Amino acid sequence: MAFEFRLTARFFDIDRAGIVFFGRVYEYAHATLEEALTLMFDHQEAMFSDLGFGIPLVHSEADYTHPIKMGDKLVIRMELQRIGKRSVTFDYQITGEDEVPRCSIRLVHAFIDMASFEGIPVPQAFLDALPRAGLSLPSTA
Amino acid sequence: MAFEFRLTARFFDIDRAGIVFFGRVYEYAHATLEEALTLMFDHQEAMFSDLGFGIPLVHSEADYTHPIKMGDKLVIRMELQRIGKRSVTFDYQITGEDEVPRCSIRLVHAFIDMASFEGIPVPQAFLDALPRAGLSLPSTA
Amino acid sequence: MAFEFRLTARFFDIDRAGIVFFGRVYEYAHATLEEALTLMFDHQEAMFSDLGFGIPLVHSEADYTHPIKMGDKLVIRMELQRIGKRSVTFDYQITGEDEVPRCSIRLVHAFIDMASFEGIPVPQAFLDALPRAGLSLPSTA
Amino acid sequence: MAFEFRLTARFFDIDRAGIVFFGRVYEYAHATLEEALTLMFDHQEAMFSDLGFGIPLVHSEADYTHPIKMGDKLVIRMELQRIGKRSVTFDYQITGEDEVPRCSIRLVHAFIDMASFEGIPVPQAFLDALPRAGLSLPSTA
Repeated sequence: MAFEFRLTARFFDIDRAGIVFFGRVYEYAHATLEEALTLMFDHQEAMFSDLGFGIPLVHSEADYTHPIKMGDKLVIRMELQRIGKRSVTFDYQITGEDEVPRCSIRLVHAFIDMASFEGIPVPQAFLDALPRAGLSLPSTA
Repeated sequence: MAFEFRLTARFFDIDRAGIVFFGRVYEYAHATLEEALTLMFDHQEAMFSDLGFGIPLVHSEADYTHPIKMGDKLVIRMELQRIGKRSVTFDYQITGEDEVPRCSIRLVHAFIDMASFEGIPVPQAFLDALPRAGLSLPSTA
Repeated sequence: MAFEFRLTARFFDIDRAGIVFFGRVYEYAHATLEEALTLMFDHQEAMFSDLGFGIPLVHSEADYTHPIKMGDKLVIRMELQRIGKRSVTFDYQITGEDEVPRCSIRLVHAFIDMASFEGIPVPQAFLDALPRAGLSLPSTA
Repeated sequence: MAFEFRLTARFFDIDRAGIVFFGRVYEYAHATLEEALTLMFDHQEAMFSDLGFGIPLVHSEADYTHPIKMGDKLVIRMELQRIGKRSVTFDYQITGEDEVPRCSIRLVHAFIDMASFEGIPVPQAFLDALPRAGLSLPSTA
């Protein structure tokens, strides 16, 4: 059970070494998350404004296996890795259309109340919405 | 009467052509504006939160005369170009420490009420604060 | 005769004022140009590597008419505005799917030889490729 | 033995949630690395052009303990964590001037030959240059 998104590496994503800057892949992963959230909540803003919670990062990490070049057409496969009491973890695999893996990314989010900015348990509304983006835990797939 | 700020072009500002991406110089200009606003209002946030107005862009433009490379140490000279009824225009000259001009930028800001997001006349608090960053109109210099 | 590209405003494109940072729209315009160049030259890299020329910016400008918010689905319409002796000018209109205009952008490019970084006349290979992206001068449309 | 660099969180580093985008801190860490490399090799370009090696990322990670807001003045403390046979690991602690820790970052770099893009053992020129930025292994401090 995964969610897929596609994007193209851009001219301005490139750094002095001629490949995509390592920090840019976190934007690629987050763009994928945003597309999933749009499916989950109709409009991403709904999560902030109607449901009143946010999902700030507590941890991010990436392993780089192959450089990404300008114009590379990328497939980003997002999976639900873990649901904690107060956090959720998503994994992202970035692959080229050539099927060569480029990078894998893990993002761990906490849940906060947007009014108080205090941590909260994983909202039921979040759990209920995951299947709308095709996301479920590996063990329940 | 001008305000000066210095910064260094970074590895991740570079694009596929090996020079600073043309859109990045707008970040350089805005970083300079932020430093000026900090002098004008103690903390930039004060403008949004205490004084209640924002200064969104209505126009931006840049002329590029010489490429900027990674590691270039840049001097950015900011001048007040014009105060309109409901807008303010700042000019920015970006020069290297080698004194070679790189780029000139013009930013035109409107004034809005942060609560209503409606346009407002130039607030007196903004005009009064300009000299604290060494900024004044050419004609009054 | 125009070229169209669509993209979505992202979470990380937003600035402290809660709308897309004014400098980000230059990335939106350039992403559109990159898609057009891909149609023109099969792969963008071909322009740099096989044909040996680059198109650095000599001027950029934007007029902002309506703020862009996170999640806005944008239509970017690119038109060829002018072909000079050694430059080319493209105009970009950014509109929401709600048909509300957000921003118009003008980019003026010079042509350079990628080996010498010297200016060159508009290459015939560039002119010949424009129709492959549906681009032509207004007068010849 | 550490290297310190200071920078200010910018208006355009902020995301839709009103705090610095989690991916931006990798730019903060890399800017610090660039300052260290400038001390190590006079000019960062020297590493690419004269010495002929690059240091692409193989792994990056960050833990976020406290949000960074616009205008926060940050102190970034960089330490050499490990020298492998073909890699080097640096740790970065980002703290506010208020001494509240914001974020810790780990970057693992491989060494490549810039001509062949093939992996190489850690160059002696790199090891010799570390002390010029005040960097040494914890065990030798």
